[in-house]
Amino acid sequence: MEIEVNLIRYCVIGAGALGGLYGGMLARAGREVHFLLNSDYDHARVHGWRVDSVRGDFHLPAESLHLHRDAKSLPPCDVTILGLKSTRNDLLAELLPAPTAGGGVVLCLQNGLHSEADSAAIVGQDRVLGGCCFLCSNKVGPGHIRHIDYGRILMGEFTPASQPPAGITPRLKTIADDLRAAGIDANATSDLWAARWRKLMWNIPFNGLSVVLNASTRDLIDTPATESLAASIMQEVYDAASACGRLLPADAIETTLEHTRDMVPYDSSMRLDFLAKRPMELSAIFAAPIAAAHAGGIRMPQVEALHQQLQFLDRLSNES
Amino acid sequence: MEIEVNLIRYCVIGAGALGGLYGGMLARAGREVHFLLNSDYDHARVHGWRVDSVRGDFHLPAESLHLHRDAKSLPPCDVTILGLKSTRNDLLAELLPAPTAGGGVVLCLQNGLHSEADSAAIVGQDRVLGGCCFLCSNKVGPGHIRHIDYGRILMGEFTPASQPPAGITPRLKTIADDLRAAGIDANATSDLWAARWRKLMWNIPFNGLSVVLNASTRDLIDTPATESLAASIMQEVYDAASACGRLLPADAIETTLEHTRDMVPYDSSMRLDFLAKRPMELSAIFAAPIAAAHAGGIRMPQVEALHQQLQFLDRLSNES
Repeated sequence: MEIEVNLIRYCVIGAGALGGLYGGMLARAGREVHFLLNSDYDHARVHGWRVDSVRGDFHLPAESLHLHRDAKSLPPCDVTILGLKSTRNDLLAELLPAPTAGGGVVLCLQNGLHSEADSAAIVGQDRVLGGCCFLCSNKVGPGHIRHIDYGRILMGEFTPASQPPAGITPRLKTIADDLRAAGIDANATSDLWAARWRKLMWNIPFNGLSVVLNASTRDLIDTPATESLAASIMQEVYDAASACGRLLPADAIETTLEHTRDMVPYDSSMRLDFLAKRPMELSAIFAAPIAAAHAGGIRMPQVEALHQQLQFLDRLSNES
Repeated sequence: MEIEVNLIRYCVIGAGALGGLYGGMLARAGREVHFLLNSDYDHARVHGWRVDSVRGDFHLPAESLHLHRDAKSLPPCDVTILGLKSTRNDLLAELLPAPTAGGGVVLCLQNGLHSEADSAAIVGQDRVLGGCCFLCSNKVGPGHIRHIDYGRILMGEFTPASQPPAGITPRLKTIADDLRAAGIDANATSDLWAARWRKLMWNIPFNGLSVVLNASTRDLIDTPATESLAASIMQEVYDAASACGRLLPADAIETTLEHTRDMVPYDSSMRLDFLAKRPMELSAIFAAPIAAAHAGGIRMPQVEALHQQLQFLDRLSNES
């Protein structure tokens, strides 16, 4: 008998720019996907789920969707895709128990370093995978996602920093294959920490500077002073990764700058959060890597300065 | 026969917040002061010169003033006080020859490191003194200065970086004494470079951060993240000064933070320039110390990052 991978049952917690896109693609491909919705619930129940994507627009009619307003009504799922902002991880104790009740895993697609630890604290560290997403996508309205560029997920097994990389396990491969079968550019990595550090090389300079300088990534990369500053910040992140035992590819800085030059004009997620007066993901994207670097014995002075500038702005934003 | 120090004849080039205050105080004390004015000329010719000062308000009637609209009409003076922004040093070749024609000296009260070099290139390095001003003063209207706090000048002989400090020369002492006799808190220093570095410990963090974070010095010092960032930036400046052979007092960082806490709410000169869409003094306050630190064999990563952020904002400001 053939294993039917499309029997994997998914849950999406945090159906925003990211969870809403991937969850939508899985549902389009016929997977059973349970969406936990809050503000979007009433709209999606009537109008369904809409994705405008560079890879093709699609619409999922309301009657085809499994929608939940309350986490307690979620059935046990094989894979719980976590697309929630890491700033809301205080909710996980309430949200994760039902969908993971049958022993399923959490696929944490959150930003930053070590964000999986919050999920691991609830479901156990052996039931958490993490993924770094490289995509330009925004939620533009209730039940409406606009995917404008890229889309890759690099996913791996979660392990604490002190343990060696877990390698590519059969379940990791099965899930990545299933995502790929649904049209998602998912790739398995044997070392999630290296992937996380690699992604931080973009997130730290471009999320941070776009907020502090009130600028798009396009403005930043097109101005010699900030292009050079971004490269210098990336070097600090690269060196911190090395100090933590993750030697990233030698051309990582040049490649990241090049990708940014090629990117369509795009507002970073942190800038969108800041402009919308939502808390920024400073803990996951800044504080955690700074702490990891310290533990590895080195400092990232420019990253620390950017973090402190953002803390200043975050405080103002939360006050108003 | 006693030497009458009040026979010193002064010229003020750049009669703004700083030159307008000190020049006004000298004129009030009976010194012959020639003011080179541009946009203020017509107003001052009719209404005179007004200074609202924490040390006492005063007004100089128009008929008591020596006003010039054209540098060529300035008579030879003993001391030419240069209060012009360092960003306008391209004008010095036109402005300095007449008032220094009789062999007088230039007292450069400009911000930053090595700003005296531009004057020295015109009048010769043996005829330039420099001074660091610690004052909160603004020009609030034509011929109208508001002096709100502090007022000290720490002045010394200019020497190139490669030469030893010049010590306190008789002419330095004479001029400082004459300024003091006019009520100005002027003090002579044997080492102008050390004084410049000491002042940069405030100027670099607080001018820079107030622009990038659109904040008053009060907001910056009252927020733990930016207070700590300012201290860390000061440490870089302190270390750079040491690398350049200037060991500053051990308590310089704590003292500077304390003065800033005690300061009345005040917009830094760089923030005022930025808000008014004038060019910022990035070359004198940032580029020159960064270059000096490099020459001394060390980097100031946080200062460099701040400089690059300011260059980004300066470009936008000059474009609009």
